Order: sequence, then structure tokens, then C-alpha cells
Amino acid sequence: MTKIVIVGGVAGGASAAARARRLSEDAQIIMFERGAFVSFANCGLPYHIGGDITDRSKLLLQTPESFLARFNVDVRVMNEVVAIDRQAKRVMVKNLLDGSEYHESYDFLLLSPGAAPIVPPIAGIDNPLTYSLRNIPDMDRIINGLAARKVQHATVVGGGFIGLEMMEAFHQRGIATTLIEMADQVMMPVDREMAGFVHQEIRQKGVDLRLNVALESMEYLAGKQQLELHLSNQQSLTTDMLIMAIGVRPETKLASEAGLQLGALGGIATNDMMQTSDPFIYAVGDAVEEQDFVTKQQALVPLAGPANRQGRMAADNMLGREQRYQGTQGTAICKVFDLAVASTGKNEKQLKQQAIAYQKVYVHTASHASYYPGAETVSFKMLFDPISGKILGAQAVGKDGVDKRIDVMAVAQRAGMTVEQLQHLELTYAPPFGSAKDVINQAAFVANNIMQGDAVPIFFDEIDDLNDDQVLLDVRNPAELKSVGYIDGAINIPVDQLRQRMDELPKDKEIIIYCQVGLRGNVAYRQLVNNGFKAKNLIGGYLSYRVANI
Amino acid sequence: MTKIVIVGGVAGGASAAARARRLSEDAQIIMFERGAFVSFANCGLPYHIGGDITDRSKLLLQTPESFLARFNVDVRVMNEVVAIDRQAKRVMVKNLLDGSEYHESYDFLLLSPGAAPIVPPIAGIDNPLTYSLRNIPDMDRIINGLAARKVQHATVVGGGFIGLEMMEAFHQRGIATTLIEMADQVMMPVDREMAGFVHQEIRQKGVDLRLNVALESMEYLAGKQQLELHLSNQQSLTTDMLIMAIGVRPETKLASEAGLQLGALGGIATNDMMQTSDPFIYAVGDAVEEQDFVTKQQALVPLAGPANRQGRMAADNMLGREQRYQGTQGTAICKVFDLAVASTGKNEKQLKQQAIAYQKVYVHTASHASYYPGAETVSFKMLFDPISGKILGAQAVGKDGVDKRIDVMAVAQRAGMTVEQLQHLELTYAPPFGSAKDVINQAAFVANNIMQGDAVPIFFDEIDDLNDDQVLLDVRNPAELKSVGYIDGAINIPVDQLRQRMDELPKDKEIIIYCQVGLRGNVAYRQLVNNGFKAKNLIGGYLSYRVANI
Repeated sequence: MTKIVIVGGVAGGASAAARARRLSEDAQIIMFERGAFVSFANCGLPYHIGGDITDRSKLLLQTPESFLARFNVDVRVMNEVVAIDRQAKRVMVKNLLDGSEYHESYDFLLLSPGAAPIVPPIAGIDNPLTYSLRNIPDMDRIINGLAARKVQHATVVGGGFIGLEMMEAFHQRGIATTLIEMADQVMMPVDREMAGFVHQEIRQKGVDLRLNVALESMEYLAGKQQLELHLSNQQSLTTDMLIMAIGVRPETKLASEAGLQLGALGGIATNDMMQTSDPFIYAVGDAVEEQDFVTKQQALVPLAGPANRQGRMAADNMLGREQRYQGTQGTAICKVFDLAVASTGKNEKQLKQQAIAYQKVYVHTASHASYYPGAETVSFKMLFDPISGKILGAQAVGKDGVDKRIDVMAVAQRAGMTVEQLQHLELTYAPPFGSAKDVINQAAFVANNIMQGDAVPIFFDEIDDLNDDQVLLDVRNPAELKSVGYIDGAINIPVDQLRQRMDELPKDKEIIIYCQVGLRGNVAYRQLVNNGFKAKNLIGGYLSYRVANI
Repeated sequence: MTKIVIVGGVAGGASAAARARRLSEDAQIIMFERGAFVSFANCGLPYHIGGDITDRSKLLLQTPESFLARFNVDVRVMNEVVAIDRQAKRVMVKNLLDGSEYHESYDFLLLSPGAAPIVPPIAGIDNPLTYSLRNIPDMDRIINGLAARKVQHATVVGGGFIGLEMMEAFHQRGIATTLIEMADQVMMPVDREMAGFVHQEIRQKGVDLRLNVALESMEYLAGKQQLELHLSNQQSLTTDMLIMAIGVRPETKLASEAGLQLGALGGIATNDMMQTSDPFIYAVGDAVEEQDFVTKQQALVPLAGPANRQGRMAADNMLGREQRYQGTQGTAICKVFDLAVASTGKNEKQLKQQAIAYQKVYVHTASHASYYPGAETVSFKMLFDPISGKILGAQAVGKDGVDKRIDVMAVAQRAGMTVEQLQHLELTYAPPFGSAKDVINQAAFVANNIMQGDAVPIFFDEIDDLNDDQVLLDVRNPAELKSVGYIDGAINIPVDQLRQRMDELPKDKEIIIYCQVGLRGNVAYRQLVNNGFKAKNLIGGYLSYRVANI
């Protein structure tokens, strides 16, 4: 009889417990959770605060009782594992209700402690109006705070998943909201120019978005029940509630005190069987470092999907099966008002930082047949190896079909596909769902044109640095220039007039072509190059150029 | 200078023309179209009849003039190519406006004639109330018919894409509709038991669906402006309008008269460069036979996606590049009222017919986190090689997220992934978009459980044939049995009571376990087997069993 002790009763821990029981009826399984809740929907917390999920009990997916009845797992909430005695293979447990302590032995120990919100040592941060959001009690505190006081203005610090979701939750409750982000963009998994769509959406909804600004200190105005926030740009701000959501830090205290190896990034080190440096101790989820799928380097990826699958695998491995974790792509998505923003694999910032060679394309294409109602633009960025064509990463933003396109890319990347192969993807098509040439096919066509030398690309961030030997050519219709704007200094010849008006262009200069999204630009590019001109086409067109600067 | 002549100005032909021009500025490109329209949205026609697409002009994506302006393509509508002189490398063209005929030479000829609706030789079918739908004039005729007469009842014969879409179009216009299908199911790309969901939806919307029935003859009641339809089941039916949508037949007259090789299925034979038996003649789209991705045999797959991509490739190949078509999976989707039904790869009927070994699983899982509003059940079937785990096909039905799951499977199949690898897919997850363990992950878990012997499956169609050595066990809660029904003769022990009540079950018989969708059934299965019972779990649960009989 194998005795499995699990530390942490959410995501990875709960998945492991259920899987272990399905594999073995006679294993003894004890799951410790220092909080009052197990297996709750931690990803749903902001949506209950915002009101989308009206019924709080829907967040409580399992109870200790239901776990016992279904899986015969001994769930001990409000019991914190405070130390591991690896020699004796036992843990010291503190009962948080009565303060008593006791030992529990194990054959295998699984650590699934998660990650804690980072609360930086900002002057004045210990006050009753400042919150973070990790679990049900945190959520309840925020909701109680909103109920108890008249909160007219809230401030969220941090433009990651939780920060963005809390911003939206406040907005939905009719609370004026400021979002403060130290970086030059929100949603760091995507690149700056793709985040521009998100910035636009946030501002259009009336949220006060402040980028490149840090919170430096604050004062608690007890009488007014307000906070005075002091920012790095010397501005101040009065707010009724503050959410700190600048990120999370793996919970490694227990592991490190037990002498388990930590990784360079501060997470618990694990091998691909989710085993720590002690072969009897496994670890999964937000607390561990795992291998990045693209770079093969260690990474900290605090996401629910990997945590759940790792938990399942760890159970397999503890019970004598061999399941190897196959790396994390970091596939992620966030709803930001009417937009979805999503990514998989590496972004351009990361590729640059790691000096990995890449090429990239942008397309902006309808989520389904443009003549069928409800089509929305999917703005899509794809990063790939310039030699092999292997997919390095993908990002998408839009109101419809964003999750689907990133899922397609996540599968293609995991399968090792190239952009050459993406051309041949045969995706579902009927007018309500897609296009005969899907977003992904189109991006693949552009990528292959570049790889085969059929297109010479130029990108949004090169346009403001053109030299005297380059001429900017806008091939859109004059009405479009008026309605959506244009780049200063461009000549305008609509693509459909270009064959007749080619003599207006200088043959001794490089023609930098752009249209709205890059498609007509490519038609114009091919005309010019096949007529002996030197040219480049702005990939992603004016739209990518404009949004990059939002 | 290469001279390219294209027969057919929609989908494949139009794609080829545009691509050819992008590759070569000096090629001469002539596109013949015997109809009045080129590059129209043929997939959108039913939606304009139904009213979803209000503006007819949205269906006209290009005109001869726009094609000339942008691509310098000489588009000749109302000009029919009536013969090919392969020796002389020229075609005979008939101008349908004035009846004149003329020759046009070619270096390369591309045939993209499409497929025509099959109109069977049913007695009385030549009448003014019977229509089929292929192009803009067909659509206009139907709309004019609806405008001219008081159509209170319409009949659609054929439950394929166009038949289902026309059924919905009539329903949207408030017209009582009968759908007649000779087979025992609509939407043949999916298997019968998956089509059950569609049958249910069709009937719930009030459409008179008649399966296993053929139209045998009809009489035109000129005075009443009605048709009297006589069916194979001896029933009769009076209707105001009849749509024949039983399928399409490749247009091969031109090719076969020119001595080009046809395939065994009656389509134009092509190699993987889309070349016919004459190396100077290419053919693409609904008229050709292409290689099936799974079986590697020839197939007729009249779908827009392959047609468009084949046209693009044929242009490459005519202009000296080498692009090889990589087989057709037949990925397809259809909207049927609130449902989407989709598939990729081979279905079970085809695998049986071709004696290809397979295993299968069913899951019914929420399209996104069930606690977040708007989650709908995705009913998903996956077929795979029982030894290698390679994906053979997938089908899905539901109100949300169906296109996404089949797209994921289409990519995974094309990449040669196995169900083992599908477990590791890292798909987008946030509560509005997915689940930490997505539908696909869950289906993969079930498949791997079967492959590894951790689950012994039984399927819906075996349940009615149990023998005396088998006992049926329903592990749902009693309230569920009452509300959604149960299988006669089943013992009911809720899964959460099973450990305590195991002694109620006979050890000498095989326990056939079922729950609603198969998940709790698996938990119960593992308990019983790990306690020494012999058992099987009904994959897809009571839901698959019930719907298979609709």
C-alpha cells in the first residue's frame, strides 16, 4: 500500500489526488490544504467580483466531503504542512484551527503549494484598503470591502491577467478605474505592438490606463477611507480601493527549508517526471520550474493548464508509471472587455533577449467570411525560424476567433510544424465559422513568400527611419487615407491604378509600399518588383503601424 | 511570356488567376466563365435567401472589371469553353451572348469547372416549383419564386450542407419546412450517433424531418401552384417549393471529351501537382479527384478550402514552381440552427467500409469553464489507430466551440500526432474560452486509458445486446435518472456511494457501468476493477446512448 501525501488542494494537488485514486484503490491519499477550500475555481474569482458569475458556490468545485465520497481522499483543510523530514519521510503538520502539530509519514510527497501574489515593500502598503487576489478569502475580502464602503474609484497595479480581469470587474460594477503598469504595455506575453489593441480597448471603455508608471508610496487617509497614491511620474492619485497584481512568486519556503533544490528562477527544480531533487518528493504547478518547449531552458509559468496536467502525471509517476512532461509553451489568453488577447510559444522580446534568430509576419483578417454577419478582425502575429520555418510563437488579438487561432498554433508548434506546412492546414470552413483561406493559411502564405524571397518585408518600427533613397507609397483608396489616417510623406496611388501610373515612381529609389493590412501591398509589391522596381511591403500594413503607437 | 487560360471563375479558378499574376507580371491570363459572375461567395447563397446576409452585393466579391484593374486578368463572363484541342493547345469558346465561337490558344490550361447539383430522373421533376442552388442566378430564382408566390411550405430533399442550410433559410423566413433524406441521418460526414444531436435540433425547431425516405415522383398542380410529392414510404406531401440538394457531380464533360483521364469516382484525375493526364492541363476544385489524407486513396471532396488552395498551387506549378498538394482531410462544418456540426478525417462508417482498424472515444464536455456563463456541451468523437494511436478522424457537435475543437484535430491529424501526444496539448485557457483540461485533452485521456488497458470500453450500440452474465450499473444520482431517463434494467448506485455498497454487485458477472457522459463511470470502473470486479464503462455515457437513437 502506497501512502501519498499532497501539499495543496487546488489545481495540481487535486488533479493528482483524483488520478492517484483512479490508478490505485488501496493507496492511502492525504491532501493537506492550509486554507479552508480545496479545488476551487481560482481562475473564476475576478468574474465573481465583476458579477459575471453570480453564484459564489459555483466557484467551489469540490469539498473535502465530496473528495472523500468520490475519491476516498483524506482532505484536511486548515492544516498546513510546515516542515518536511526527508530522512524520516514524514511531514510536520500544523492544525490551524487549534494550533496543534502532528506528523504524517509518506511514501511519496507531492508539493503543489502554488505561487503567492508579490507585495512589494512600498511605503504605506499595509493598510485596510489594499488587496491582492489569490483565493476565496481574498475574493470575499474585496467583495466585503466593496459592500462596506462607497467605492467610487479603484486602482489596479499590474497589467497581467489578474490585473486586467480586476480592472474589468471594477468597470462592470460601475467603478471608475485606474490601471497602473510599470512597463510600456499590459499583457506581457504578447509584444508591445500587439498590446496596442488592448490599450485602445481599455481606454475606449473609459479606464484610466497609465503605462510606464510605478506606484512608489501611498498614504492611508483613515478619515476619508481613501488612499493617496504617489507615482513615479510625480503624479498623485486618490483612490478608494487598491489591488496589487504585479505578479506572483513561487511558494518555495517548505521545499527550500527541506533542502530541495531550487532553480535559477526561484522555483522548485523538477525533472521531466515532475520529481524534485529528492526522488520521493514530486512538485507541480505554479511553484515549480519546468522546461520551456521552445528554448528547452527552465521557465516559471504559473498557468492552470500545465498545473493540472502535471498533477495528473505526477500521480502516474508516483504509482510506478512513467509519464514525462513535454515542456510548457505558455499558451495563454485573457479577455479584456470585448477583446481576447492570446499567445503561445515565445514572443519577439524573448527571442531577442535570448538571441534566437527569427522572422515574423502580421496579418489582420476576418474571423469568418466577411460577408457573413459578425465577422471581426483577428490581428495575428507569427514568429518563426527564418531558415527551417519552424514556429517559434504566435499572438492574436480580436473580438472573435482569437482562442481558436492560438489553439491551432499551439498544436502546430507542439507538433513541430513549419510555416510551409501551415499553408496546407485544412480548417473548418463555412461562412459563420471561418474562411476558405483561414487567418492561419494567410499568415503562412505571407511567411512563405518571405522565406522564398517573393516578398521583401519591412516592419512598422522601421517606417519612421526611412532615408532619402526610399519612397513611401500608400496603395489604398484616397477615402481610406481620409477616414483612418496615413503616414506623412507617402505618395498615394491606389493599387488598382498602379499599372497605369507606375511611371510616377522613381526607379532609382526603394519603394516602401503599404496598404491597410498588407494584402494589397503585396499585390502592389509583386507588380513593382516584376516591373524592375526595388520595393518592400509593410507587413501588417498601416494598421500594425498605427496600433503599435497606441 | 506564358499564356494561361482558366476555365471557371470561382474559388479555384479565381485563386489561380490572382496568384499567377502575383508571380508573373507578363504572363497573359484569360479566365473564362460561362455564367455572368466570377468569384462570388457560393457558400453564402443560402444565407442571403434566409436573410442573414441582407445585401446581395456582398456576395459578389469581384467583378470582371475589378479583376482586370487589380490583377490584369482578362475575364470573359458568359463565355463557355466548349472544347479543348490538346494537339493544337487551344480551346474553342462559345460566346453565350451572341452565339459566336472562337479559338483561344494556351500554354497552360487550368480547369476549375466545379460540380453540378445532381437532379435525379424523378417523374415530374421538370416543373417551375423545383429548384437547385449552385450560383447567383439559382439563388435569384429561388428568391424571386418566394416573392412571386405565397410559399407557406417548402420541401428540401437532401440533408447535406446545402440541404441543411436551405432548410434553415426557409425556417428563418417563417416557411413550414420538410426535410427529406434517404439515408438514416443527415450530415453524412459525421456518424449516425453524432447526427442524432442534429436530428434533435432540427425537430425542436419545428422542421418536419423525414429520414430513410426517398422522393419517388411528383405532380405539378399548376392551378394551385403546388407540388404533390410521393415518397418511398407511400406517403404524400403537398408543397409550394422544392429544393433538390441530394449532392453534386463533378463537371467532367469538357475534360472527358478532350480525352483527359478520369478517376474511378468520376472526377478528373490529377497528380499531386494538380496536373491532369495532359501535362499542360491542370485541374482543381470540385471537379477533380484528389488524394485522401488518411487512406491515400482517391477521393471526391467538393469543398471550398481545398479548391482555393489547389488553385493557388496550380498557378505556382504552371509558372515553374513546385507545390505539391498534401491530401484532403475533408474538414467540414455546418451550422444547423443553434448547433454547429463538424468533422475532419475519416468517420467510422468509412473506416469500417475500408476495413481500417480503429478505436474510438466519446466525450461530452463544457466548451469553456462550466462556472462561467455561456458554457455549452461539446459532444466529441475521436477515431484513432488502436496500435499506434494515430488520429484517424474526429467529429463534434454543439452550440459553442465546435469549430475550434475540429480545427485542433485537423492540425493534429495533419501533423501525424497520436492520442498520446494530444494529452499534452497546451490550449488557451481562461474561463470564458476553455478549461484547464480541454475537451481534446479529456478525449485524449480517455483514449490513452483504453490503449493502456486502464479502461475497458463498451459502446452505445452494444448496450441493447447484453447477456445474462452482464449487469448494468447506473452510477448517477437518482434525480438524474428521473429527469433525463435511464436504461431499462439498470441497478442504480451513485458513484459516491459505490465503495460502501460494492457488495450489492455480483463478482461473477461483468458490470456494465454508465453515467451521464462517461466520466463518473470511469471513476466507478476504476473502483470496481481495482476491487477485483470485471467491468466495462460505457464511453460517452447515457448521453451517447440516448442521442444515437434520435
